[in-house]
Amino acid sequence: MTTFAEIAPQLEGQAIEVPSWAYGNSGTRFKVFGTAGTPRTVEEKVADAAAVNRFTGLAPKVALHIPWDLVDDFAALRSYAEDLGVELGTINSNTFQDDDYKFGGLTHHDPAIRQKAIDHHLQCLEVMNATGSRDLKIWLADGSNYPGQADIRGRQDRLAESLQTIYAQLSGDQRLVLEYKFFEPAFYHTDVPDWGTALAHVQALGDNATVCLDTGHHAPGTNIEFIVAQLLRLGKLGAFDFNSRFYADDDLIVGAADPFQLFRILFEVIRGGGYGPGSEVAFMLDQCHNVEKKIPGQIRSVLNVQEMTARALLVDREALDQAQQAGDVLGAHEVFMDAFYTDVRADLAAWRESRGLPANPMRAYAESGHQERIEAERVGGTQVGWGA
Amino acid sequence: MTTFAEIAPQLEGQAIEVPSWAYGNSGTRFKVFGTAGTPRTVEEKVADAAAVNRFTGLAPKVALHIPWDLVDDFAALRSYAEDLGVELGTINSNTFQDDDYKFGGLTHHDPAIRQKAIDHHLQCLEVMNATGSRDLKIWLADGSNYPGQADIRGRQDRLAESLQTIYAQLSGDQRLVLEYKFFEPAFYHTDVPDWGTALAHVQALGDNATVCLDTGHHAPGTNIEFIVAQLLRLGKLGAFDFNSRFYADDDLIVGAADPFQLFRILFEVIRGGGYGPGSEVAFMLDQCHNVEKKIPGQIRSVLNVQEMTARALLVDREALDQAQQAGDVLGAHEVFMDAFYTDVRADLAAWRESRGLPANPMRAYAESGHQERIEAERVGGTQVGWGA
Amino acid sequence: MTTFAEIAPQLEGQAIEVPSWAYGNSGTRFKVFGTAGTPRTVEEKVADAAAVNRFTGLAPKVALHIPWDLVDDFAALRSYAEDLGVELGTINSNTFQDDDYKFGGLTHHDPAIRQKAIDHHLQCLEVMNATGSRDLKIWLADGSNYPGQADIRGRQDRLAESLQTIYAQLSGDQRLVLEYKFFEPAFYHTDVPDWGTALAHVQALGDNATVCLDTGHHAPGTNIEFIVAQLLRLGKLGAFDFNSRFYADDDLIVGAADPFQLFRILFEVIRGGGYGPGSEVAFMLDQCHNVEKKIPGQIRSVLNVQEMTARALLVDREALDQAQQAGDVLGAHEVFMDAFYTDVRADLAAWRESRGLPANPMRAYAESGHQERIEAERVGGTQVGWGA
Amino acid sequence: MTTFAEIAPQLEGQAIEVPSWAYGNSGTRFKVFGTAGTPRTVEEKVADAAAVNRFTGLAPKVALHIPWDLVDDFAALRSYAEDLGVELGTINSNTFQDDDYKFGGLTHHDPAIRQKAIDHHLQCLEVMNATGSRDLKIWLADGSNYPGQADIRGRQDRLAESLQTIYAQLSGDQRLVLEYKFFEPAFYHTDVPDWGTALAHVQALGDNATVCLDTGHHAPGTNIEFIVAQLLRLGKLGAFDFNSRFYADDDLIVGAADPFQLFRILFEVIRGGGYGPGSEVAFMLDQCHNVEKKIPGQIRSVLNVQEMTARALLVDREALDQAQQAGDVLGAHEVFMDAFYTDVRADLAAWRESRGLPANPMRAYAESGHQERIEAERVGGTQVGWGA
Repeated sequence: MTTFAEIAPQLEGQAIEVPSWAYGNSGTRFKVFGTAGTPRTVEEKVADAAAVNRFTGLAPKVALHIPWDLVDDFAALRSYAEDLGVELGTINSNTFQDDDYKFGGLTHHDPAIRQKAIDHHLQCLEVMNATGSRDLKIWLADGSNYPGQADIRGRQDRLAESLQTIYAQLSGDQRLVLEYKFFEPAFYHTDVPDWGTALAHVQALGDNATVCLDTGHHAPGTNIEFIVAQLLRLGKLGAFDFNSRFYADDDLIVGAADPFQLFRILFEVIRGGGYGPGSEVAFMLDQCHNVEKKIPGQIRSVLNVQEMTARALLVDREALDQAQQAGDVLGAHEVFMDAFYTDVRADLAAWRESRGLPANPMRAYAESGHQERIEAERVGGTQVGWGA
Repeated sequence: MTTFAEIAPQLEGQAIEVPSWAYGNSGTRFKVFGTAGTPRTVEEKVADAAAVNRFTGLAPKVALHIPWDLVDDFAALRSYAEDLGVELGTINSNTFQDDDYKFGGLTHHDPAIRQKAIDHHLQCLEVMNATGSRDLKIWLADGSNYPGQADIRGRQDRLAESLQTIYAQLSGDQRLVLEYKFFEPAFYHTDVPDWGTALAHVQALGDNATVCLDTGHHAPGTNIEFIVAQLLRLGKLGAFDFNSRFYADDDLIVGAADPFQLFRILFEVIRGGGYGPGSEVAFMLDQCHNVEKKIPGQIRSVLNVQEMTARALLVDREALDQAQQAGDVLGAHEVFMDAFYTDVRADLAAWRESRGLPANPMRAYAESGHQERIEAERVGGTQVGWGA
Repeated sequence: MTTFAEIAPQLEGQAIEVPSWAYGNSGTRFKVFGTAGTPRTVEEKVADAAAVNRFTGLAPKVALHIPWDLVDDFAALRSYAEDLGVELGTINSNTFQDDDYKFGGLTHHDPAIRQKAIDHHLQCLEVMNATGSRDLKIWLADGSNYPGQADIRGRQDRLAESLQTIYAQLSGDQRLVLEYKFFEPAFYHTDVPDWGTALAHVQALGDNATVCLDTGHHAPGTNIEFIVAQLLRLGKLGAFDFNSRFYADDDLIVGAADPFQLFRILFEVIRGGGYGPGSEVAFMLDQCHNVEKKIPGQIRSVLNVQEMTARALLVDREALDQAQQAGDVLGAHEVFMDAFYTDVRADLAAWRESRGLPANPMRAYAESGHQERIEAERVGGTQVGWGA
Repeated sequence: MTTFAEIAPQLEGQAIEVPSWAYGNSGTRFKVFGTAGTPRTVEEKVADAAAVNRFTGLAPKVALHIPWDLVDDFAALRSYAEDLGVELGTINSNTFQDDDYKFGGLTHHDPAIRQKAIDHHLQCLEVMNATGSRDLKIWLADGSNYPGQADIRGRQDRLAESLQTIYAQLSGDQRLVLEYKFFEPAFYHTDVPDWGTALAHVQALGDNATVCLDTGHHAPGTNIEFIVAQLLRLGKLGAFDFNSRFYADDDLIVGAADPFQLFRILFEVIRGGGYGPGSEVAFMLDQCHNVEKKIPGQIRSVLNVQEMTARALLVDREALDQAQQAGDVLGAHEVFMDAFYTDVRADLAAWRESRGLPANPMRAYAESGHQERIEAERVGGTQVGWGA
């Protein structure tokens, strides 16, 4: 049995990028509930992300979303963030909120709209140059609602061409990370619905193009850890968007809906070389705190990833291997479950304290008065959400 | 083989209630696309519904949604509608857009909020008295997003009590129609997620409480026509919300995603006594025209129901029964499919013309200039959507 | 925080009925793999069940399946079982393996086949009288594969009548427990596909008819703990068939696929009064050990139920209630997860030892030599499976 | 509007390969129902396939399954088939019924078992040389039932190596066609679960390796026509296994569960160049007639494919393209549906008669006395099924 002390060194340096939009209001098509203390500006979003990092030591980067996080001076934003102890991370593009994109962006049949969508991505690359971000993450809302509405095949060809144009403008070690999604907001067909499609496109682009796996973007019953293993094997897993879901793309707190699935995913990440100093796989959150508080929601999320990473590291891989080789189904399963069922929370608390972090970041945040402070300070103005 | 002439009389009097909100803007959590000509007022929504009826003869009633369709003078609205040839139909309540309802309405643990939700329904009953509507349709957004967040069991008891309070205020032949929904907007648990729950509640209420079956509100793989048959058998099918879906509650045009499923549903409706003069099952649409034009979207929808009803009526039930009794699987299936594959469109066109209706309502609408007219007239003001 | 010592008394008397068929060979339509030591007789199956009980103290009853477990002298089988320390439990009927049942049993359109199926159940009641069993569990394979093949509605009426005939023959405190199943072996429609249908039938029968919830028999995304809460609320939850699944009715070891789901289910069982001395809800396994060893597979299963029951008992319900009332989503969720993440295994090991049971039943079985003994002894004869 | 006369020439030469195993008994894990007239030998299976071709003109090839269809003299079998007017087609391998394959074949951790599985495929290649078959179709049952049971990643590497060894032995224009399947018979993980995995492997192999798309092998909600379009675009769609399903891999008659889905699939096949003289995509059936008659079940199946192909050919692609370009959602959808709703059956009947085929092959078969003849002749012996 592997011990916590043995795996503790591997917890050093774990970093989970948090999304700026998690601190703004979000909801469903039925209602967006606002909450006191919600940021009104990009700076306040960054400040909230920095708070998450301060209490956990796990979130040194904040991902931005363009145009929601457009500012005049990204250098200034960068300094502002760095002063708060965090970096600006992945840049996310958005081609789903302009009226022109009703029938698609990078896939649109109209060359003018396609060019507009391409230009938006080139603008994102400029932002990246200013922020020092490595990754351009592309999630497409493109698709159609009715059979016959769109030329599924032709759109693939146009998408390939658009991506090629964008990819050609990457510089240095910048990467294009293509995200796939099973459904929503399009209902009948989605232009990048599965990892196979994302793979085909990034393979066509080249070495600096990889796939982003959002854990909530699969059909029911999909074995996600298999996809993790496969993409790592093929050298094309670029990033995770962590969250959890019961049915659709619920964007709930990672690990909340099916903790064992998160464990299995992290085990394959580790087993496949996707974790640790040598790996370039980005761990990110992509969540929406529709009914729960936002900063503590993010703290809980990064802690869930950390706790489950510890459990996955605890798997006695030698014993597992032996049981697998012996065809001992129950023995192998038990080795696996032993790690999952190990309660690492007390060990992690001590480990945090030894690093000058709060033993219990959730409680520390609650007792810090931070939430009350921002609720008191952030009065007036317009709370940010997906629209701004 | 049954002929169209034989079943034509049964098409007389078919009525499909259209929802006022179908004429307003709707979308996803990502974006609501507006369109030219969208109504700015309740009256314009009713006028659009009347247009659908004028071109099809199939939509003599328009369902209202409170508070979206609240007006000061419902008697005046009723006259306005009747002048346009339509009646005001089912009243739909809404306990999902007020901040107080973040954690539920009729199920809320706080008696004050529960009472507020009850009072809203009593207000709806008053509207019904003014509009002459028969049905109060209740769809609850209540639920929770995280395991542990809510007391699932306690909420059922509170729901039962709230419904009882509302039910006690029904008068005359008014009915309470309780809708169930598998998921959304709550992600972890929904308080009325399935027909079994809806049944348990309406059975506890009494004879004037029935179930509304929304065709988009089921888990993947659910055999909906079975539920239709069962609810009819138990005397508790009150209404349909028709639409279609590929994955979630897509609210697409009825029959667009799986026409054969619509055929099977309508066959069980007819076979179980849910269609025709003797039946009190309300046929309604509940759809969102996110990317397509709204009035033609509604015209297409009621036509789809009519065409599929004709096909379902064409099933040679005697031959079907014989094949079933004989254990002739392929023979029975063929009798069934024969009706589905029969192209009734030309017969229906002639039938419409013989009644003074356009042979092809879609084309007639397109050629009528109506769309251009409303697009020209409806300039300024605020287009209605789910928020207003 | 609740402690193990506080909940330990509630673990006393926990009993999980094991199915005789779990000790025989089972598989998929593609292949049934046999294993050394598999029973050749009903007695050997009972002996295996007794071994599970001996190592765990959790499995004092073994469920039988008729005709697979038909013997000439059930009184003798009862004595045999009691000598081994176990009782004969629930009697399961089988109307899916006779050629006559190709198109149904209790629902069949042919009265002669319907009567045959009814008679089979009456025979089961006679077995129950001999074995002292309380429950007749009815799972129907009835359904159809093709739209049109069967009269869905008529079959419900025939089913209701058949069940009534059987129910009328119950004596004393005997119960009829009706199981529902989403799909398989019929593909298009299943005659008791959901809990709503099962509920409608057992309500029509009377107080001694209840529903059996098999955890593997639901559509993807179904919230099973909600159904548990609802059936308990309605007084109609009679029994559980525990197992786990990733997609279809996989019949895997309970808790293996989604341990957190098992936790949530057990929490609602406890919260709703379905656990403990006062409850009449039967806990049973219904599993198939296709690739793993059978006796250890059953030991692991009852341990999983015990461990998760302990975790569910550990939920601090007062703290949970307070957080729920306060609308503290993250707080309530954390109270819930605290119990789930608590590692109860060491406490349970000590608790077992204090009762004269092996601390680690899995290891104790492996070291006991029992498996080697039965593999050596059970040579020749025909291993039992689903066919015999 | 395209007319039947315009598309009729494209129906010439349509060929759908039928599987030998469709004529044997099949069923579920619960029961295999036998039927009178079921073949006892490979020759009788071939004769049944020839009957399907005789009545429809659509099924000139019969696929074989090794070892179920192993004979001593394949040259003789080939002559026998050709005398009956059919060719021997695709060879299907089987590594799921030998006890050695309990934990996998081409993926097994034990090199000896892996070699055995490879050797089986080399034997299949020898059969192909004797039968003149072009395609070796590989469907793997490999996978695991429990998390931890197997090394998901390592198995991919072993699979790649095994496939490479087999691929190296292809000769001439022989092809390796790799089939993927979402789940079953393994429940937790499947080694080739999706088209992305199949694509990755066949891309690594080379030009003569392609993917087989079985329409029943996807997660719920999967847009299959998208995969068709994508695989055609990538030049890697080798074959179809047609069937239909409501939930799992039901293996029902193609087009029976969702005719509109079949239409959409065939439309993308045609639009993407996968149909007609220039295409090398093999159309095959993979079905199990568990409760319906087998020969008529196959006749119905090939007719369904033919009828739906005709409808898909009827799509007015110019009008569709115009509506798509115009962003006319409802117009494009209507063009699409117009073709689907067109009743081509009378035209096809006339077309068949003009070619010397029965107008109604189902009726012609029923009236031919063929079924009665084989039922009378095939008495004694052992009916074939999946085991032999």
